[in-house]
Amino acid sequence: MRALRFKSNRLELVETKTPEVSEREALIKVILAGICATDLEITQGYIAFEGTLGHEFVGVVEECADMPELVGRRVVGEINAGCGWCDWCRRGLARHCPQRTVLGISGLDGAFADYLVLPAWNLHPVPDEVDDRRAVFAEPLAAAMEILEQVHIPPGAPVLLVGDGRLAQLIVRVLARAGCLVEAVGRSERKIRRMRGYAHKGYLNAPPPDVKYPFVVEASGSPRGWRSAVNAVEPRGTVILKSTYAGRTEFNPAPLVVDEITVVGSRCGRFAPALKALAGGLEVSDLIDAEFPLTQWKEAMNRAREPETLKVLLEIAEPTG
Amino acid sequence: MRALRFKSNRLELVETKTPEVSEREALIKVILAGICATDLEITQGYIAFEGTLGHEFVGVVEECADMPELVGRRVVGEINAGCGWCDWCRRGLARHCPQRTVLGISGLDGAFADYLVLPAWNLHPVPDEVDDRRAVFAEPLAAAMEILEQVHIPPGAPVLLVGDGRLAQLIVRVLARAGCLVEAVGRSERKIRRMRGYAHKGYLNAPPPDVKYPFVVEASGSPRGWRSAVNAVEPRGTVILKSTYAGRTEFNPAPLVVDEITVVGSRCGRFAPALKALAGGLEVSDLIDAEFPLTQWKEAMNRAREPETLKVLLEIAEPTG
Repeated sequence: MRALRFKSNRLELVETKTPEVSEREALIKVILAGICATDLEITQGYIAFEGTLGHEFVGVVEECADMPELVGRRVVGEINAGCGWCDWCRRGLARHCPQRTVLGISGLDGAFADYLVLPAWNLHPVPDEVDDRRAVFAEPLAAAMEILEQVHIPPGAPVLLVGDGRLAQLIVRVLARAGCLVEAVGRSERKIRRMRGYAHKGYLNAPPPDVKYPFVVEASGSPRGWRSAVNAVEPRGTVILKSTYAGRTEFNPAPLVVDEITVVGSRCGRFAPALKALAGGLEVSDLIDAEFPLTQWKEAMNRAREPETLKVLLEIAEPTG
Repeated sequence: MRALRFKSNRLELVETKTPEVSEREALIKVILAGICATDLEITQGYIAFEGTLGHEFVGVVEECADMPELVGRRVVGEINAGCGWCDWCRRGLARHCPQRTVLGISGLDGAFADYLVLPAWNLHPVPDEVDDRRAVFAEPLAAAMEILEQVHIPPGAPVLLVGDGRLAQLIVRVLARAGCLVEAVGRSERKIRRMRGYAHKGYLNAPPPDVKYPFVVEASGSPRGWRSAVNAVEPRGTVILKSTYAGRTEFNPAPLVVDEITVVGSRCGRFAPALKALAGGLEVSDLIDAEFPLTQWKEAMNRAREPETLKVLLEIAEPTG
C-alpha cells in the first residue's frame, strides 16, 4: 500500500506492506484524510515522530476480529490508542493513558495511507446522514467540543476567541451553537469573515483594548496569542489554551496570580458528541478549501501551509458516503 | 507619627503627619505588623510602589465616623480598598475592584507606621481568643485559604506543595486541616522540618521523579518552582499558582495543552474564614522567628531576608491582646 511517511526530517510517499492486525484491532481502508496544523508542525520538528502522518480520517473497516459487525461500516476513530485497562482508559480518557500511542503523532502510523490500524474500541460508526466530507472533521470538531466538556461556559457568556485558523473556525461554531457570544480576533480579514454567522463580532489583529472577557479561548497557534489572551481576560476569568507549537515564549506568572486567572489546557475530545453535532446539522464542509489525491501530497501540504487556507483534504480512496 | 516609607528606591523611617480620615474610613493605631515576601519584593522593584510599606497588621480603631461601635476594638483589615459600589465590591471581591488601592502595595500607605487608614467596611474585629501574635497572620492565612475557595480539593487528595517559605508554611496547615495529604518540597531542610505534623511527607530540592499529583500548589516564589509544579502534576490535574516575583521565566504551553492541565492563579483571600480558623485553634505563632521595634526596621528587614527565617514582626505599639 501507499503511505506518506515522515523520516529523518523528510516526507516521502512510499510503497509499504499493508499492516497486520491483532484480534482487538481493526484494519481500516482510508477514504479521506484531513491535513491539520499538527501535521505541519511535526514536519517542522514540534515532536520527534517518525512514521506515517495524519490523524483526521474517515474510512471503511475491512477486518475486525473482535467486532465483526463493524466490517464494511464507515467509521471515524479516536486517535489516542490506550492500553484499554488503566484508570484513564476505563474513564473514557484513553487520550491520557500513559501507555498510549497516537495515530500519526506518536508511535502509531497515521491516516495518510491506504490503510491504518486502530483498536476496535476506538472506532465510531458514522451516521448515514453525515457524508464523508463532514465525517472527516470528527477529530478536530471533538477537540473544539472538548472546551465545553472541561469548562462550563454558560449560554450568553461573552467569549473572546484568539485565532482564525482551522481549529478556531470549528471552535466558533461549537461555541455559537452552545449560545455563547463569541468575538473573534485573527490576523486574516478573509478568515475572520469566514466566521460570519457564528462570531458575534470580529476584530483584525487586536481586540478592543479596554474590553475584558470572562472567557478567552487561545487557538491562534502562536506565542503572540498567549499574550493577547492574558491581556483580554477579566479578573477571575478563564483562558482556554488550545495552541501547541514548536518553541517557547516568555512567561510572567504575576498577572495570573494578581488577577486570579484560570488557564485550562485543552486537547482532544470525545468523538460521540462531535458525531452527534454533525448528524444534528452542524455545518463544516464549507471549511474545505482544496482536495488532492494522495499522489499530489506535496501540492496538498503546500496549499495547507498558505496562510489563507483552511482545510485541505487528501483523497485516498473513492468517497462512498 | 513614624512611618517606614519606600521612595526613590530607598527605605527610610520618617516622621510624618497622622493621616486624616473621611466618614467612611477608620483610623487604626497599629500594634504589630508582619513582614511578607511581597514587602521584600517591592524593595527590589517587583512593582512601582512609593509610600509606607506593610500590609499584615493588627491594631486598634481610634476613629471611625460611620461605624462608631468599632472605636476601641482590636481589628485586622482586608488590604484591598475597593470603591465599594462596583460589581466586584458588591460580591465581596474588592480585591478585584478596578479602582482599588492596596495597603502598602498600591496607592495606599501601609502598616509599618504608627497609624494607618482603611475603609471601615474592610475591618474585622478580632475575637478575644485570638491574641495579637496570631491575629497578625490573618492576611497571609486568608491568602492560603483562598486556595480552597477557588479549587475543590477533596479530603484525602494528594497535594504537592512546592515551597517552604512563609506562605507555604501557612498553606500546609490550611490544607492539612482540610484533610488533604500534603507532600512538601523545599530547599531548606530546616523549613521542611518545620512542617512536621502538617505535611504527610517532605522532600528536599525535588519530589520523587515518577510520582504525579492531581493537585500541585506552587508557592516557592521562584521561577524554578513553576517548572517543578508542571512536571509533577498529573494529566487533567490542577496547579495552583501563588508565587509572584520580579522577572520572567520561559514558558512552553504544549505540556499544559497535551496533559490538559488547569492552572489557577490565586492571591488574597477573605478574612472571615481566616479569623474563624484562628479562633478555632489553628496554630501559627510558632512561625514567628523574631520581633523588632519599628526603630530597628533595618535589622528586621535583614532578618526577614535570611533564607532560614520565617515570620518577622515589627512591634509598633504595646501589644494589648
